[in-house]
Amino acid sequence: MIKVKALDKSIEQVIQITIDEKTKPVGSLGQLEVLAKKLQLIANQRMIDAEETCLKKNSQSRLALTKPTMLVFAGDHGINEENLSIAPSAVTRQMVLNFLHGGAAINCFCRSNHIALTVIDCGILTPITLGEIPEVTERPLSPKLLIQRLAAGTNNFAKQAAMTNSQVEQGFSYGEKLVEQLSSDGVDVILLGEMGIANTSSAAALMAALTPHAVEECVGRGTGISDEQVKRKKELINQALQRITATLPSDDPAALTEVQLKKLLGEIGGFEIVQMVATILAAASRSIPIIIDGFIVSIAALVAVRMQPNVSDYLIYAHVSEEKAHQLLLAELAKLTNDDSQPLLDLGLRLGEGTGAALALPLLQAAASFYNDIASFSEAGVVV
Amino acid sequence: MIKVKALDKSIEQVIQITIDEKTKPVGSLGQLEVLAKKLQLIANQRMIDAEETCLKKNSQSRLALTKPTMLVFAGDHGINEENLSIAPSAVTRQMVLNFLHGGAAINCFCRSNHIALTVIDCGILTPITLGEIPEVTERPLSPKLLIQRLAAGTNNFAKQAAMTNSQVEQGFSYGEKLVEQLSSDGVDVILLGEMGIANTSSAAALMAALTPHAVEECVGRGTGISDEQVKRKKELINQALQRITATLPSDDPAALTEVQLKKLLGEIGGFEIVQMVATILAAASRSIPIIIDGFIVSIAALVAVRMQPNVSDYLIYAHVSEEKAHQLLLAELAKLTNDDSQPLLDLGLRLGEGTGAALALPLLQAAASFYNDIASFSEAGVVV
Repeated sequence: MIKVKALDKSIEQVIQITIDEKTKPVGSLGQLEVLAKKLQLIANQRMIDAEETCLKKNSQSRLALTKPTMLVFAGDHGINEENLSIAPSAVTRQMVLNFLHGGAAINCFCRSNHIALTVIDCGILTPITLGEIPEVTERPLSPKLLIQRLAAGTNNFAKQAAMTNSQVEQGFSYGEKLVEQLSSDGVDVILLGEMGIANTSSAAALMAALTPHAVEECVGRGTGISDEQVKRKKELINQALQRITATLPSDDPAALTEVQLKKLLGEIGGFEIVQMVATILAAASRSIPIIIDGFIVSIAALVAVRMQPNVSDYLIYAHVSEEKAHQLLLAELAKLTNDDSQPLLDLGLRLGEGTGAALALPLLQAAASFYNDIASFSEAGVVV
Repeated sequence: MIKVKALDKSIEQVIQITIDEKTKPVGSLGQLEVLAKKLQLIANQRMIDAEETCLKKNSQSRLALTKPTMLVFAGDHGINEENLSIAPSAVTRQMVLNFLHGGAAINCFCRSNHIALTVIDCGILTPITLGEIPEVTERPLSPKLLIQRLAAGTNNFAKQAAMTNSQVEQGFSYGEKLVEQLSSDGVDVILLGEMGIANTSSAAALMAALTPHAVEECVGRGTGISDEQVKRKKELINQALQRITATLPSDDPAALTEVQLKKLLGEIGGFEIVQMVATILAAASRSIPIIIDGFIVSIAALVAVRMQPNVSDYLIYAHVSEEKAHQLLLAELAKLTNDDSQPLLDLGLRLGEGTGAALALPLLQAAASFYNDIASFSEAGVVV
């Protein structure tokens, strides 16, 4: 398993002084100051990793977030045979094609904010055929498709394990190799999104297993299901959690080992969730900041943080979604975070796809910009 | 006085249907959907103004926010002789120079988000001399300076009217001409910011005069003044409000005429506030959307809306600042607004300069992008 180091905070005070000497009242940029400090600590860590240890120089180096990449992980879920969603599983594939043709919300926001987009087929029901992939246009931001399929959808986890242990391992291997490639391509910030009809069921089950919240609090209306569907969803998740009590020998989620957490992912996870967990771990181990989107991505973040608590040093929470369960989940994640950072946006979003993460990127870039370029009082000749 | 028309909402339902047919769950983009609708109604109004009345076509036309301009209005305040700020009035000028040299927070955010920046000297104590203006660099976003001085700072409004009626009129004329120029340059969204040591005193006085809130609720700690300064600030504002009771013949701010509101601006306003009020009115009359920044700009918005209630149709509130008074003020403005739009960001900012407005622009552009480019279900072949 990849090891994630805690951020070296020895230069934290140097960074804070740099921020406080800028021509603005101390603290007046609020969350953007917290964000700039976190991003600079991560960038510094990346330089330490590269064995460049001139700390003073690092703290003054330019913070760059010039090569952002959005990864949208797609997968299908066997549990959707229970009719838990407003849409049939075929819609996952239709939306993947929509992403590849540039017609979805995430395409618009990636174009608007100059973010490269890669869609990963982690195991949708029916693979995309070569003929369906649109020709690469001249635009550098044409969406790419990666095939990292673990199977044609998971098993129905209400009845049996969603996937095998070897599928989980394969998913981890895919995630790690993807980050290795992105890192060598110079990607300096990774944004995560997802698509998978019924993946809120899997996410809600994982939340119930890994937080003090009961299933009832972890299940929302999603994209708009009926009371009957909500009731059935809760029953099936409770049933699955009953089945796997043996996998969770402790009532304390913090006590679960990496092996047990992988087993849990295999039981009630999804192909896209497994690959996101691996991607988060791998990116954090390479000191690349990761922007976390909504409920499903936040669940992947929770699993990754439970596996290695230092991961939270590298996570930026993009937004609080309209879903009550996401709000509760973010509160749990905040308890596991060692800084004062808060989710950046609160716009009533509940779409997924990575839309919240894409919308938040300009705030990170603005934080980098102010850290790099606001003059100090002495530089500007401002005497307060 | 310029007349501001209410938005023609006859195509509101057509716009809503366009949004609802896009490949995403209905309503799942939250505030961004509200924003897209508002921006499209404004764009439509601009086309109606131009006597292009093909309504169906308009509602499907591309929404563009490609030429944003940030206007930072700067002015000095006589009341600062009472020592109400952490900084001497000379800092207003120093910060104007900092803006012109590109070293302030607003420069960073304008560069980061590709916003042209113009700084307007509305009456700082000592004018900028030609030799102090940096040469225009090759970057298209070099800050510009406009000289629209009404005097070398206002009078101390605790003791006498801040300015004369003719200064108010001159300020309105400046604001109108500026918007005329911007409009003919093709500017399609105006962002407002300000700089003026002690201008929170003027803003707090206007808020107390124009809302049900007592002076005590309108005065905050600003950039970090002492308890003693806060107390003195409240006393002086109360004293000024006593002096001008004759100007406010009614307890109902909604009953004040435009002439009375101009008189009020002259008594307790600031040069930058007057010019912002005029700019807001002029931009709204030309159906150009205006992004409102923090406390001071929101006060200008309140005066403009009190003058002509239709103005609120054209205003986008960028953020809720850390200042309690700003939160109360936004709640008052929300009562005067005819749509469901809410301030977009809540990042604990309390800097001014237009920083919140600059940070919010990418959200407007993202809203335009999704309105323009998300495929409909039928276009994408998605069957839910």
